[in-house]
Amino acid sequence: METKRPLNQMTRRRLLKQIALAGGAAALHPGLLAAGVPALQAPIRQLKLPRIDTSQEVAILGAGVAGLTAAYRLLNSGNGYRCTILEANPIVGGRSLTLRPNDVLREEGQPEQVCTFEKETDEPYEPYLNAGPGRIPSAHVNLLAYCEELNVPLEVYIMESRSNLVTPPRIDGHSAVNRQVVNDTRGWIAHHLYQLAGSTGLDDDQQGLLRSLLIRFGQLGSDGSYVDTNGKYAASGPPRSGYEELPGIQDGKPVQPLSLEELLDSEFWSETSLYQPEDFLWQPTMFQPVGGMDMIVKAFEAWIDNHPEGQIIKQAEVTNIDKQGDKFSISYRKDNEIETLPADRCLSNIPIPLLENRLNLEIFSQDFQESLQAVFDSDFLAPTCKVGWQAARQLWQQPSAERVVPIYGGISWTNHALTQIWYPSDQIYARLGVLTGAYNFGQDAIDWGQLEPDQRLALARVGAAELGGNAFAGGLGHGITIAWQNMPFQKGGWAQWQNVEQNENEHYNRLLQGDNDFYIIGDQMSVLPGWQEGAVVSAVHATQQMADETYEAPPVLVAPNSKLLVEGF
Amino acid sequence: METKRPLNQMTRRRLLKQIALAGGAAALHPGLLAAGVPALQAPIRQLKLPRIDTSQEVAILGAGVAGLTAAYRLLNSGNGYRCTILEANPIVGGRSLTLRPNDVLREEGQPEQVCTFEKETDEPYEPYLNAGPGRIPSAHVNLLAYCEELNVPLEVYIMESRSNLVTPPRIDGHSAVNRQVVNDTRGWIAHHLYQLAGSTGLDDDQQGLLRSLLIRFGQLGSDGSYVDTNGKYAASGPPRSGYEELPGIQDGKPVQPLSLEELLDSEFWSETSLYQPEDFLWQPTMFQPVGGMDMIVKAFEAWIDNHPEGQIIKQAEVTNIDKQGDKFSISYRKDNEIETLPADRCLSNIPIPLLENRLNLEIFSQDFQESLQAVFDSDFLAPTCKVGWQAARQLWQQPSAERVVPIYGGISWTNHALTQIWYPSDQIYARLGVLTGAYNFGQDAIDWGQLEPDQRLALARVGAAELGGNAFAGGLGHGITIAWQNMPFQKGGWAQWQNVEQNENEHYNRLLQGDNDFYIIGDQMSVLPGWQEGAVVSAVHATQQMADETYEAPPVLVAPNSKLLVEGF
Repeated sequence: METKRPLNQMTRRRLLKQIALAGGAAALHPGLLAAGVPALQAPIRQLKLPRIDTSQEVAILGAGVAGLTAAYRLLNSGNGYRCTILEANPIVGGRSLTLRPNDVLREEGQPEQVCTFEKETDEPYEPYLNAGPGRIPSAHVNLLAYCEELNVPLEVYIMESRSNLVTPPRIDGHSAVNRQVVNDTRGWIAHHLYQLAGSTGLDDDQQGLLRSLLIRFGQLGSDGSYVDTNGKYAASGPPRSGYEELPGIQDGKPVQPLSLEELLDSEFWSETSLYQPEDFLWQPTMFQPVGGMDMIVKAFEAWIDNHPEGQIIKQAEVTNIDKQGDKFSISYRKDNEIETLPADRCLSNIPIPLLENRLNLEIFSQDFQESLQAVFDSDFLAPTCKVGWQAARQLWQQPSAERVVPIYGGISWTNHALTQIWYPSDQIYARLGVLTGAYNFGQDAIDWGQLEPDQRLALARVGAAELGGNAFAGGLGHGITIAWQNMPFQKGGWAQWQNVEQNENEHYNRLLQGDNDFYIIGDQMSVLPGWQEGAVVSAVHATQQMADETYEAPPVLVAPNSKLLVEGF
Repeated sequence: METKRPLNQMTRRRLLKQIALAGGAAALHPGLLAAGVPALQAPIRQLKLPRIDTSQEVAILGAGVAGLTAAYRLLNSGNGYRCTILEANPIVGGRSLTLRPNDVLREEGQPEQVCTFEKETDEPYEPYLNAGPGRIPSAHVNLLAYCEELNVPLEVYIMESRSNLVTPPRIDGHSAVNRQVVNDTRGWIAHHLYQLAGSTGLDDDQQGLLRSLLIRFGQLGSDGSYVDTNGKYAASGPPRSGYEELPGIQDGKPVQPLSLEELLDSEFWSETSLYQPEDFLWQPTMFQPVGGMDMIVKAFEAWIDNHPEGQIIKQAEVTNIDKQGDKFSISYRKDNEIETLPADRCLSNIPIPLLENRLNLEIFSQDFQESLQAVFDSDFLAPTCKVGWQAARQLWQQPSAERVVPIYGGISWTNHALTQIWYPSDQIYARLGVLTGAYNFGQDAIDWGQLEPDQRLALARVGAAELGGNAFAGGLGHGITIAWQNMPFQKGGWAQWQNVEQNENEHYNRLLQGDNDFYIIGDQMSVLPGWQEGAVVSAVHATQQMADETYEAPPVLVAPNSKLLVEGF
């Protein structure tokens, strides 16, 4: 058995020597916590717009995260910009959509849905489904900085619990538990390399170190075995793969180890996204706004509404973007009337393909036109579906004979078309919780989008039964579902630059530069498609270009590839 | 590059077939979320005491988690028990101690300390240090059930963030970042086994599956390499090990891969506990009570105080436990007077070694005496120290040039004697946060316990500078420290049955049975030393033995080994 660390045989003398040293460190303490802060690499949102006097009219098309961020930055600069946001929907946020009781969802070509979630009287906020983005990585420092600036309360989003389920593999007809699949796989990998350490080409000392590492890495026995001759875990101590009966006054009963063969035969790593939490974008720590993701866009909205030079016009669908001389004239439909907004600058948060037939290409240079056309001609917007259920939390939080440890948050993975089920990260004592009952991509999403909502829910229930059992599936109620490709003003979940036929890098680089005071913003103009952080950085980039002579845009060479982001590294 | 999962080429026909199937699953739905719950394995606390009429006087010695749980169960049974808890300290909780501004800490033989944490006016609760237990695993179902029953608000405890630090290894003189060490190690292990897959003894198909697994497991390139010929990560997509510059409108700049050789030479896996979050007891999801761990014992206390047959006498140190005939007579010092409590039953939550010279062994059978003596004669209680600091959160939450991703919660590990630094899991927007600035064991804890608090803090600051840099260490203020072996009524952190000289299994089994209506409780009588869950299950076990004729105690064969729990599996 590995010891945690060799016990430090400090002598009293060595301690006192260290303490003398500490005088130095102690002296660093400036007192009363006026902490000296280390040299910083500022998040790019900390780029400030220079102080200039202007009275420019800025038209911002679309009140998604990028449009709101752009308006906030321009108005906040104190430079005199007048910002008008035209938003086609009756609410702000775009894909940052949170569904709550009685919300109405209208997909093109599908029956209207009404959210039927129940609110319990003792809950602090309404139950919700994040129909779009649902989590914020620690690495999304620009978005997080705005959350703090706007004082949007955040709580931890649980991406993975070792108690989550995964299928395949299946054990006795049930889904496997995350801690078994993850740890038995890890153990077998460590065991096999332990045995082959002599063939790695490392020198003898390093072979010895590698073996020592592998024992700790894979929880191996001291002889490098993962399972002993009785088929039990070889290592002493609580097995990482868990118990059939939990320890208490006596040792627990460990689960039976899964064999490497059954793990390999299941192909769980390609049949599911079990390893997604290891990938950069999904690593802990992640956050969610308390009460729903749209708390962020609502905070932006409240700030803009409160600013004398800012306004958001809702249910205003842009029908035409043109420019005469220095003035844009932007036509939009409001209450079945066509109205026109004049502007000196235009920032478009509209998904690029939806600009086709709404935008007079003539106003742009040839190459900018060509780049827009290349996007128009491609399969640019990714289809994606989600399902939400409300259910009694005891369905997953109550220990059962099959699973002695309750599930609190995280994601269960399946090769059923529903792909994944998210458990709520908040309010563990509430009677009811909202599950994300499906979140899928690619062909699954295309197929589901062609089905009526009730049919999608029926499929999601079949998959839920397969993943969590009939009692679990039977307890799921108040279903609601969204296929983003059917949403009239989004037409998809995120950009797929990898589908732009030729020179996608050139086109991405060209469109990032804007043309004739027209700038395209949104996560579609970032290497973070589908992430709010991408929307924020694009808005920062565009507003700096617009208003800061000294701004040096970073050189961009390669277009984003959302395939990587959806499918893991 | 691995695809997440083969896209499901469902045909419309197959979809509709599944929907027909779904009729079945749909029919399961009982509607209105009156969910059918799967068959349960009850947490043992759900064992109910049988309904009997009694007026027994029960003396409970020590108002730690076990004593409070026992009193709660007996009083809650409605059987007429009269419970008196004698607590030596002026507050309940024992080691479940949470330190807040102006709390006074008195170690034996050390100067008194006063907690100087500052409270900001806009914070919802006082800043605190959990000086004892600080987290609750999902697997501790009995404790969690009481938390829910007593309505103690819980929030997620972050055990590990990929942005935490670890040293060794050191990179350019700085601590390494968790995501680099964890993922580069994982990648190199996967790479070497990929190359040696042919020697594993697996058949050809399974060798192919293993290679496919390893590519996803270790984020390898499609040819099985971890690093390419240019020394960059071979896999496409965001590197798990992170960036020097984060992605935005353009790709980020990945960090330089660490070589296997430098990882092995650092011996990080034995020099630190970096892999502890993989071990069963520390796996996600973990929780902490909002506002401090003692919220649990305070909830028990409030319930007991409110019960007509329950009382807690504080600052009442037990001096002698005797028995004449059927009656215990328990002497205790209160306001410098010796008073006596008569009792029919006695449950002792006092650390076993502290019973020596307080307990008349004559009242017990020979074998029970021998088992007690065996514990008295051993080095039974583990020394352990903690340090708390209050500091400006920007010291770890602000992105810096060395570390572009902020730290939100989790633990940084070091081979310095401080062992580990915990970052707060709550209130990320607060200006100040409380860090656990040291939590050590074994010889380190013995050494520190012999030093005065100021000297421990000086050492903890030296270690903090080594781990997080001088600006970080310099910003740490309002230090407070505890050496549990110096606390007069605890004398240590947890039981070390492995140190009982001979037949420790026999002695553990014997003491678990109680003798002459005297029962020993506490995590010391569980295989979960140092965990509140151990205290709860011991109290359930003892009260069932006491009051339930039908209770069949589980057969216990092996004594606990806290070495495993402290040092990892």
